[in-house]
Amino acid sequence: MIKLKEIMDNVRDKTPLVHNITNYVTVNDCANILLACGASPIMSDDEGEAEDITSICGGLNINIGTLNKDTIPAMFLAGRRSNELGHPVLLDPVGAGASRLRTETASRLIEELKLAVIRGNISEIKALYGGSSTTRGVDADASDQVNASNIDSVISFASAFSRNTGAVVAITGATDIITDGEKVCCITNGDPFMSRVTGTGCMLSAMMTAFVVANPDRRFEAACAAAVTMGLAGEMAKSRLSGPEGNASYRGYLIDAVCNMSGEQLEEGAKYEIR
Amino acid sequence: MIKLKEIMDNVRDKTPLVHNITNYVTVNDCANILLACGASPIMSDDEGEAEDITSICGGLNINIGTLNKDTIPAMFLAGRRSNELGHPVLLDPVGAGASRLRTETASRLIEELKLAVIRGNISEIKALYGGSSTTRGVDADASDQVNASNIDSVISFASAFSRNTGAVVAITGATDIITDGEKVCCITNGDPFMSRVTGTGCMLSAMMTAFVVANPDRRFEAACAAAVTMGLAGEMAKSRLSGPEGNASYRGYLIDAVCNMSGEQLEEGAKYEIR
Amino acid sequence: MIKLKEIMDNVRDKTPLVHNITNYVTVNDCANILLACGASPIMSDDEGEAEDITSICGGLNINIGTLNKDTIPAMFLAGRRSNELGHPVLLDPVGAGASRLRTETASRLIEELKLAVIRGNISEIKALYGGSSTTRGVDADASDQVNASNIDSVISFASAFSRNTGAVVAITGATDIITDGEKVCCITNGDPFMSRVTGTGCMLSAMMTAFVVANPDRRFEAACAAAVTMGLAGEMAKSRLSGPEGNASYRGYLIDAVCNMSGEQLEEGAKYEIR
Repeated sequence: MIKLKEIMDNVRDKTPLVHNITNYVTVNDCANILLACGASPIMSDDEGEAEDITSICGGLNINIGTLNKDTIPAMFLAGRRSNELGHPVLLDPVGAGASRLRTETASRLIEELKLAVIRGNISEIKALYGGSSTTRGVDADASDQVNASNIDSVISFASAFSRNTGAVVAITGATDIITDGEKVCCITNGDPFMSRVTGTGCMLSAMMTAFVVANPDRRFEAACAAAVTMGLAGEMAKSRLSGPEGNASYRGYLIDAVCNMSGEQLEEGAKYEIR
Repeated sequence: MIKLKEIMDNVRDKTPLVHNITNYVTVNDCANILLACGASPIMSDDEGEAEDITSICGGLNINIGTLNKDTIPAMFLAGRRSNELGHPVLLDPVGAGASRLRTETASRLIEELKLAVIRGNISEIKALYGGSSTTRGVDADASDQVNASNIDSVISFASAFSRNTGAVVAITGATDIITDGEKVCCITNGDPFMSRVTGTGCMLSAMMTAFVVANPDRRFEAACAAAVTMGLAGEMAKSRLSGPEGNASYRGYLIDAVCNMSGEQLEEGAKYEIR
Repeated sequence: MIKLKEIMDNVRDKTPLVHNITNYVTVNDCANILLACGASPIMSDDEGEAEDITSICGGLNINIGTLNKDTIPAMFLAGRRSNELGHPVLLDPVGAGASRLRTETASRLIEELKLAVIRGNISEIKALYGGSSTTRGVDADASDQVNASNIDSVISFASAFSRNTGAVVAITGATDIITDGEKVCCITNGDPFMSRVTGTGCMLSAMMTAFVVANPDRRFEAACAAAVTMGLAGEMAKSRLSGPEGNASYRGYLIDAVCNMSGEQLEEGAKYEIR
């Protein structure tokens, strides 16, 4: 069993400061979900300060959602400095497969940095390992969806990718598959309505970085706990939705749910299996 | 009569992927309103991937709200590639008239690209065609407001602009005037409170792009349907507002209203006239 | 006594247009709180238009929250032009002390521009004047908190900084200290939950700029009135919060509270002392 409450409590007790180099689409939600879970955000993406900023933080969240020629070098600078300092670095390869720039940048980050976690949807991860994915922009392609008939092959593929990179690999979707190359956690928390809000993946990556920073000795468990937290928040937000409320209300309810979730609720609501 | 329900259903059935090169102020709302109406957003503004990204999408929304020297070339690259691929391109010339850079960039985009739609407020459109407008930042100048005494001249001016550019021209405000150079649609849906939220114009442009992508053979009708949808959402959001709720709540209610609006509600609530 | 109602009414009567060069994290909230208080926002950060845009506005809000090599020159260009035109310029030195780039950029802006207001948290202000601060990213460091035992030294330090720069200095936190070098206002409105939302400082800076623009002959009083408005909004938002509502709901309630606050409510709820 994963000590979900303990892992969450560590985030709230330590209020880890997380450096985010992230896209401008969902950045506000990333900042607010970090605050909601008990962490503290800082956003900075200029070469001129990337190393300074990452030095005062506990970990680094690199999200390539709106990467550009100025922020890419900052990702490498901050990533290398984080590696030197022993800070965990998470990569969210948003849209890998959708452009050569995204695929190549993500691949180079994986090659040149020591990553603690790589978190993406199945299409993004396939674009980076195996190279056989089709893509639908920033969303997973329907043909890639994880289901009963392909889950074993996805797990063995994720495990191989994890062993290959040394990173915990988190493939999230209707079923989240998280592995450190040996242990595998399959999480079924979540709600289909989460895909109607932009940035649920980005928010999870930000929060997962905080969880890993606050739980340095159990990276795999911390990544799993963050995914369970996000999925459970999605369920809680859905049950709160009524009447004229739609995806904009849902967006706020997700963050609210993380803000108010207790460690006990997290443990009670968790739906996962360790293989 | 415009087949509003059919046009909206096409968006929900086809879930068109829309490439947005847009400002960082209202980008999250643009993404969420695209998801609300049944479309799918991707944001990308770097020269190094603008063509790749637009190639996998169905249409392109160019919004110059926070244009800069790096994103302007991306607008041209993506626009030309979209033209080659026959994808509809919408231009939202935010703040045209407020700076030379905005006016010139918008003018050059109109000159060099084949645009499917140009959507702006009356001051922006006047700054681009006729050159006689005063401006008040990103909002329409009071002296430019469309009213009973000047509506005929605004219509003839918009029609001339449309014939001149080959684009559907959509001038939105208290009364929206949309024309393909021959037909003209005047829409009176909406609520004055919409002007108390940033980005209602940007959101409409994003959604209008999706409507046009999903209805390629009736660009004009699709643009009208998007404007009716936004205006009706503004009315629904207003009627939901009560007590301590202000413009921040209203912002979410607008997107929620689009998320939950049925084709039947759209047809019942529509207030427009075709001339 | 500060004529709080009159100052607020001036904002609503004049709807000042505020040019914001600000970060992409909280920019949407800055735009919406400007609209909420009765002002009008425009965001623009490219060198190619910074001077044009600031020329049509009434004042300039410079926020270095995600500064970069392209936006820094725009800050100086817009700032100098605003100075030439006699427009008030506010500086929000977000994260000064957290990187050399931030500290140096803020210091140079203070040196080269004539600032109407400098607003930051205690750690940021100490990093810029005195240089002895520790920092915790974009938040004030715990060791810097203003309390009964150090308030006198903070006041004398803020007053010296104000006399040194000619700017009203606003140090905000649990107790806000605002001074023009002679008068000092201590404000205790606010709620601890404000620190659980990203951007409350940024929002205050944007709104403070609008208040100063609309009340040109009483910069100090206008800055105080803006801080009281924000603090009172924080209290109102807190009392509205219930059940499953968390920091995301609170974010909207803050802006809603500004949107609906009357001048009478502002005067009744104000908690300040002039020394």
